[in-house]
Amino acid sequence: MERFREFAHKHLSEVVEDLRNFCALPGMAGRPEELQAAASWVAQALEESGLRVEVLSAGGPPVILAEREVAGRPTVLFYDHYDVQPAGEEREWLFPPFSPRLYRRRLYARGAVDNKGTLLARLWALRAWQDVEGGLPVGVRFLVEGEEEVGSPHLAEFVLRYAERLRADGCIWENGTVSADGRPHLYLGMKGLLSVELEVRGATTELHSGWATIAPNPAWRLVWALSRLKSPDEEILIDGFYEAVEGPDHEEILRVRRLPFPETDYLQAWKVPAFLQGMSGSTLLLCQFYSPTCNISGLSGGHVGPGERTIIPAVARARLDFRLVPRQRPEEVLEQLRRYLDREGFEDVHIRPLGSPLQPFRTPYEAPFVRAVVEATRRAFRKPPAVFPIAGGSGPIFLFGQGLGLPVVGLGIAHPGSQVHGANENVRLSDLERGIVHVAALLGRLAEGLPG
Amino acid sequence: MERFREFAHKHLSEVVEDLRNFCALPGMAGRPEELQAAASWVAQALEESGLRVEVLSAGGPPVILAEREVAGRPTVLFYDHYDVQPAGEEREWLFPPFSPRLYRRRLYARGAVDNKGTLLARLWALRAWQDVEGGLPVGVRFLVEGEEEVGSPHLAEFVLRYAERLRADGCIWENGTVSADGRPHLYLGMKGLLSVELEVRGATTELHSGWATIAPNPAWRLVWALSRLKSPDEEILIDGFYEAVEGPDHEEILRVRRLPFPETDYLQAWKVPAFLQGMSGSTLLLCQFYSPTCNISGLSGGHVGPGERTIIPAVARARLDFRLVPRQRPEEVLEQLRRYLDREGFEDVHIRPLGSPLQPFRTPYEAPFVRAVVEATRRAFRKPPAVFPIAGGSGPIFLFGQGLGLPVVGLGIAHPGSQVHGANENVRLSDLERGIVHVAALLGRLAEGLPG
Repeated sequence: MERFREFAHKHLSEVVEDLRNFCALPGMAGRPEELQAAASWVAQALEESGLRVEVLSAGGPPVILAEREVAGRPTVLFYDHYDVQPAGEEREWLFPPFSPRLYRRRLYARGAVDNKGTLLARLWALRAWQDVEGGLPVGVRFLVEGEEEVGSPHLAEFVLRYAERLRADGCIWENGTVSADGRPHLYLGMKGLLSVELEVRGATTELHSGWATIAPNPAWRLVWALSRLKSPDEEILIDGFYEAVEGPDHEEILRVRRLPFPETDYLQAWKVPAFLQGMSGSTLLLCQFYSPTCNISGLSGGHVGPGERTIIPAVARARLDFRLVPRQRPEEVLEQLRRYLDREGFEDVHIRPLGSPLQPFRTPYEAPFVRAVVEATRRAFRKPPAVFPIAGGSGPIFLFGQGLGLPVVGLGIAHPGSQVHGANENVRLSDLERGIVHVAALLGRLAEGLPG
Repeated sequence: MERFREFAHKHLSEVVEDLRNFCALPGMAGRPEELQAAASWVAQALEESGLRVEVLSAGGPPVILAEREVAGRPTVLFYDHYDVQPAGEEREWLFPPFSPRLYRRRLYARGAVDNKGTLLARLWALRAWQDVEGGLPVGVRFLVEGEEEVGSPHLAEFVLRYAERLRADGCIWENGTVSADGRPHLYLGMKGLLSVELEVRGATTELHSGWATIAPNPAWRLVWALSRLKSPDEEILIDGFYEAVEGPDHEEILRVRRLPFPETDYLQAWKVPAFLQGMSGSTLLLCQFYSPTCNISGLSGGHVGPGERTIIPAVARARLDFRLVPRQRPEEVLEQLRRYLDREGFEDVHIRPLGSPLQPFRTPYEAPFVRAVVEATRRAFRKPPAVFPIAGGSGPIFLFGQGLGLPVVGLGIAHPGSQVHGANENVRLSDLERGIVHVAALLGRLAEGLPG
């Protein structure tokens, strides 16, 4: 372990330089040239890490497959992506989102964690092994795609087509956190995702609000429809929505009770006085792991800005995302939503699905691969990880977990203030360094074979 | 009358040229130079119409007083304004809002009706009298201010200070409509106005929506608060809101039943299949005249636009305007709103009043001045006007009606598709022409003295 720690420490400034260059290539959905540039960068970085690289596709932007088999040893598959979320309002950023800047031992940029920083920590772990030991202890494969942030619409086709090339003993996902006090968090699954836009139209143009007595106002219709979707006590009211939801069994509740969760770190990072409904302790975590969500990610309509405009808006829109727990299906939730809005008298609310829906997936605690990753994490951090049954986020994990039958564990370098998807996304340099050691330890542990 | 009609017809292209020049000077709240330019233009136009002009102020942008007394004759006061509402989304406009364009016998520009076109019709009526008769038949005063669209915050002070200079036998307001079939609508009052912004804040930055289980979402809070303000059957739920509201008496109901209202014109102009709650006929008009409103004029929060961002918004905002009927007071409604939100558990919803509140005011049908204006309108249009007890819009009418004790009647050149306050505001050239004749007829009728 010590030689890997030394390697990571010694090469940290090179890793940061790599990450700066990588983050300066945005890679945003719908911009093929950006995606191409980011993909080429990744392909080269994988090659320089000693892997055989192929740039493939199944109809979308490039999917990069890289591999190095080690005869007689297990093989691990790393899932990563080179695309990023849009930056959002640039004025909310301390530094321009695609001009990476170091500040107080953190690198700020869109993608600094999700997923560029995480991918680089992995590549530098391979380099560490080759530098320290002259080779790799296990087989590794990387699948790096460019559509994760829009629901990976072409990945199912790709995984089907290249299933043979993706054989492995387990899959490492791109997500994982290190708490402020340095305790790593692993994730055994991800929630499903359904994103939609609700739109209501009134008159074809804005009207003088003196007509508000008799002219339809799409903003009111939207507000009333939304208020029927979730009650102020956070209960989602869509008929049948909770039918497939399974609560934790007794053993799972006991596990969750033992999990640490740095509540204060999160409250401080978010600058809020309390979590929803004053939750804390295991209630908080049980809700996070076992509850699906119905989230408003955007609202728009009429005029809110400089100047006053007393008008009736012509159109009002809301963006919603539903994070789903295992056994819920996004396609079914979409149908439930339509049926429910109709039944409640909101046939005028148009639903437009956004991106591709994602299925939820969870790996059981007991999987041997999980136990090996836990043991490796303990070695790298000198303390046991907290193993979270599922993450709040979503990804195409179902294709690997259910589709390829692989155990999947999320492991990475986020911290509670990383602002993934928000403004000022950032990675702590210490997490980059520890992330290299973490993956190096994982490769070493897997070489010892999976526990029986 | 015929000679005024000939004058208006002959000079229409000059009127249009004037209006083009006037509309090219925006005059937007918060932009002193624009307001100054528009005010100077007005002062000169008033002077060229044969009036003695003074440019005054009571702390805000210029207020222009112009007058010409005629010994032994009544005096009429015209209220107008040179400021305009912001253009809104410029991409919604057929032509740039401040580059006036003629298209199908309409002039398109912000202010084409409200209030620049209306003011010009009045000035050209004065010129008509002087051209046709060599002088004016009655005394006229004009008060033209530059803060109407933001609630006339300095006008109360001005009216108090210059009350003596504003003496008159009646006041003509800036609003009035001509239906598609050429029937003029007069208005005997205006609703009051309270505009507010509601704001809810969550975490200091947007969060990954994977935290929607436990992190507060200000957009949901806002939706729930709004949904408690008005029910889907359009009932405003704020405690005490309707207490001061008086319904129409039997005689007023009978009057309203006789009023024409071009329902089809409005439905076609707005391109909606029906009015709110399927109302029509006298129900529609009784609602328009005697009901206060609670209107959402804007909604914003998080991300609704190109790209997908699965986030929890950091802040959510709504703009509301309340149009109030006589005896309701905006200051009281503001207090009721705060008390109600608190009582309903929405202490976290911040209320920011916008602009200046406006009091409602109505002149009685029976006022002699009203009867004179009705008679003049009949002469100009060769058909009787529809007299509406109150307009849906708002203005500082209370200062003149209640403050100076004047009867006030709104008379003007809008049509059902004028899009006042919306995109593509426009005036029909035929309405400009008829508007000149209308005001000329009014001056003539007033010269005969008010009915006893």
